Amino acid sequence: MPVNRGYEHGGNLERAAEIFQKNREAFLDFSANINPLGIPDGLQELLVQSISRLTDYPDPEYKGLRRELAVYTGISAGRIIPGNGAAEIIALLFQTLKPKRVLIPAPTFVEYEQSAILAGAEIRHFELREAASFQPEIEELAAEMAQGVDCLMLCNPNNPTSSLLKPAELEYLIRQAGRCRTMVVIDEAFIELTEGSSANSMVKYVPACDNLFIVRAFTKIFAVPGLRLGYGIGNQDFIDRMRFRQQPWPVNNMAACAGEYLTKAREYLARTSAWLKGEKEWLYGRLGAIPGLKAFPPEANFILVKLLDGALDAGELHDRLGKRGILIRNAANFRYLNDRYFRVAVKDRASNLRLVEMLREELANY
Amino acid sequence: MPVNRGYEHGGNLERAAEIFQKNREAFLDFSANINPLGIPDGLQELLVQSISRLTDYPDPEYKGLRRELAVYTGISAGRIIPGNGAAEIIALLFQTLKPKRVLIPAPTFVEYEQSAILAGAEIRHFELREAASFQPEIEELAAEMAQGVDCLMLCNPNNPTSSLLKPAELEYLIRQAGRCRTMVVIDEAFIELTEGSSANSMVKYVPACDNLFIVRAFTKIFAVPGLRLGYGIGNQDFIDRMRFRQQPWPVNNMAACAGEYLTKAREYLARTSAWLKGEKEWLYGRLGAIPGLKAFPPEANFILVKLLDGALDAGELHDRLGKRGILIRNAANFRYLNDRYFRVAVKDRASNLRLVEMLREELANY
Repeated sequence: MPVNRGYEHGGNLERAAEIFQKNREAFLDFSANINPLGIPDGLQELLVQSISRLTDYPDPEYKGLRRELAVYTGISAGRIIPGNGAAEIIALLFQTLKPKRVLIPAPTFVEYEQSAILAGAEIRHFELREAASFQPEIEELAAEMAQGVDCLMLCNPNNPTSSLLKPAELEYLIRQAGRCRTMVVIDEAFIELTEGSSANSMVKYVPACDNLFIVRAFTKIFAVPGLRLGYGIGNQDFIDRMRFRQQPWPVNNMAACAGEYLTKAREYLARTSAWLKGEKEWLYGRLGAIPGLKAFPPEANFILVKLLDGALDAGELHDRLGKRGILIRNAANFRYLNDRYFRVAVKDRASNLRLVEMLREELANY
Repeated sequence: MPVNRGYEHGGNLERAAEIFQKNREAFLDFSANINPLGIPDGLQELLVQSISRLTDYPDPEYKGLRRELAVYTGISAGRIIPGNGAAEIIALLFQTLKPKRVLIPAPTFVEYEQSAILAGAEIRHFELREAASFQPEIEELAAEMAQGVDCLMLCNPNNPTSSLLKPAELEYLIRQAGRCRTMVVIDEAFIELTEGSSANSMVKYVPACDNLFIVRAFTKIFAVPGLRLGYGIGNQDFIDRMRFRQQPWPVNNMAACAGEYLTKAREYLARTSAWLKGEKEWLYGRLGAIPGLKAFPPEANFILVKLLDGALDAGELHDRLGKRGILIRNAANFRYLNDRYFRVAVKDRASNLRLVEMLREELANY
């Protein structure tokens, strides 16, 4: 049976249903880091209306969507490229840039490495150390970058560590990168799910920095992983080259309509911030208080956790919780992590309580 | 303003609305070759239901969709790869095969050439001659293929000529291709819109021919260009390699649900055949009877037409009809064609009548 790369990621309810012999609906899914507020009000109605547009080809220029994204991000439409999820933007970015060497701080989202390798790049990893809460030493990272690297690939906030680089640190890296002709790519898939939200974004630096490219997604913030909608922001020449390589109609009409609508969901973003601020700290505190667990301080809507007791590993914990209808992300397949680590999303209070109780039971029982 | 490749294709209502200063809805669109029966019964309701699936990631294996496609095509699911429209399948095919030389009979759909070039291939064209009704001399094509060609790319029925190669001719080509280790790719995007429908398909040859790959689409037959759903059928090793290169979630949940449903729309396919049989011949006859026009015999739901009188060219005709709310496809940008050629879709009788009347008027007025 052929298997594509999605198999290795969180949120694979099909697979969980198979393994644990349950309906997809039976799971509380902490393995995918999706906004638990559900889809924004009005999106359902809008999508129903958009069905009438199925008999037309999408606009190959996606003018409407790009216009709304320009308003949402404060960047001109010519610097914006929509895509079939952030995954398409990342793949297309590497296919267009064709970097010889890509530097990737890790542990991080595995798609960067896989997409870069498929585009012919050699990968250099920069280890994010647990002792430093997975924060890179910026000068050290800049020095590594100066060693003949064409592209520095950052995930900010970083998945799975939930750590965040501040604009001043990123500004320094981008400036240093400019000196050695390195493209800095920042995947901001979770940026609206940090405290401060888009204030942590480097989008506003794009007009002044030709060597900066930002990847964004609707998936996490608007709870629409089934929609497949992402976008890239960069210098106009490079965006034009990407658009030339891209297939003519990468985003379907329903996703394009949804995207136009979601950029205006300001009230939803405010509710998200209000929920996240309290809930993230609450869950972090509760997880850290469970004997045998260490939680790393989260900057986004997910938390990396370490199993301190050597006996129970993340795979076993995943299986035990799965049987009880709770899905966590075993983080063993992230580079520099191992079977002592797992990742959980921050969900609503009732779900988070249930997770905490089950974890407490499993660790006590062991 | 960055423009992607979709700009050059038919069905660009956004562009037409801009040029002719009309609403999209004001046009009778003969420029896109879409089934005029509209979307099948029940699809609207099914899509409304599928909205609830947006908060889940798609199944990265697309098991449900592949299972239904296996029933629809009679080929095992392991030989089937779904994609974000046939356009993604074609691009991914060339990126995976990495052919050095691709032989493309032309005039044909321009995406083959563009995707193959982006994957690093050199293109050889094989001219389809108007005098032979755009049918290739098969022995001659096979001889050309034997000259160090890695891949023969066919469109069957061919767009824009509406000509069709018969299974016996294709079987011969595939056998010859096997001897010189050439992959034969057949884009069957319009196969269900030929008389005989899937009886003209080469899908059934796939299990016995490792060097055969078929591209299929939902777009034309089910009137869903806004959905973006296509698939490829080939030998399992090659399909696995394509799936490995493909992004994890290429098809959104609504498109995947729609695809599962549409493979069972047998009654719709029967109605389509009944409409097409009569209407295609009717329109062909009427177009051919207009002084100054020559229509080429259509095997699919579209007709290539030549302007015999040297004064009015296809660009001008396109503009004159556009002002009156009728869109045709100026075929001047197809290789080996020029501004004497245009293409029209076969639509419902009332629309076709209007097209014929308008064409008659424009040619008489000139």
